[in-house]
Amino acid sequence: MIYRCFGLVGIVFALGSCGPTTQPRTVQSADEAAIRAADVTWSEIAAKKDLEAIVAYYTDDVVVLPPNIPAAIGKQAARELNRAMIAMPGYTVTWHPERIEVARSGDLGYARGIYELTTRGSDGVPVVDKGKYIEIWKKQQDGTWKVALEALNSDLPPRATAPASLNR
Amino acid sequence: MIYRCFGLVGIVFALGSCGPTTQPRTVQSADEAAIRAADVTWSEIAAKKDLEAIVAYYTDDVVVLPPNIPAAIGKQAARELNRAMIAMPGYTVTWHPERIEVARSGDLGYARGIYELTTRGSDGVPVVDKGKYIEIWKKQQDGTWKVALEALNSDLPPRATAPASLNR
Repeated sequence: MIYRCFGLVGIVFALGSCGPTTQPRTVQSADEAAIRAADVTWSEIAAKKDLEAIVAYYTDDVVVLPPNIPAAIGKQAARELNRAMIAMPGYTVTWHPERIEVARSGDLGYARGIYELTTRGSDGVPVVDKGKYIEIWKKQQDGTWKVALEALNSDLPPRATAPASLNR
Repeated sequence: MIYRCFGLVGIVFALGSCGPTTQPRTVQSADEAAIRAADVTWSEIAAKKDLEAIVAYYTDDVVVLPPNIPAAIGKQAARELNRAMIAMPGYTVTWHPERIEVARSGDLGYARGIYELTTRGSDGVPVVDKGKYIEIWKKQQDGTWKVALEALNSDLPPRATAPASLNR
């Protein structure tokens, strides 16, 4: 933790223990950059369909809000959701963050971005879905960031979205 | 702003200006309660279809991510989205937050909740949609909380969602 009272740091440390202050803007920017990098890397991992590597980005109590099916509550439910997604015929996905914002205390932030998801329809023709998402990121004890909550939805009319295999 | 270094407050104030510290847990809980109360009141206002009162909960740069149409970027776009929604035949909506979390610095928080939205189909029969949402709340200069970002999606299969009037 970094203290903003630069001139007082010595005195404060000498006199007793304090709670951490909010972070300087440069540290806040570093947190935003860290979330951006993590989100970009996460998308690259998702493209490789490595289930456990994907799930490693979630907190244990993650909640995923996918369109047209109920919420997946907890890491195991999120794992099963991702397992079902990457098993869909012709599945490929990419996403990237457009806006990141982190609280001054550096413990909580969010990413807003866009995704593109392709599956293969029952006629063998690729079906492309484009949409948008919110992720809530929380800083972990080891300084890394993980996703505690996410929601996504399509930009396209209902017909093109939510492959039937996810709706059962 | 509240300082956690209770024994040092006098000295710190005497010696110079500092950045605010993170808040005690009681203040963080108060922020969570404030967001919860605001979200519940917002739902009550939405039920009354008072467009400007609804829109007053948004920051100027709000981004709304509705399902099956592109994002509404900025307060005016969010206003037009809400105008279209409350004009739908038989429109009623309720929502309530299930989980609120606020950063230690008290400037940023989120709500996750569930909604129920009813419209009247072209055959005159009510169509009920149930789903879930994320809202990002930001504390304003006056201490109130406003929504800077939200996303929602349905728990139900695509057929029942996204009334056609919002898809044009």
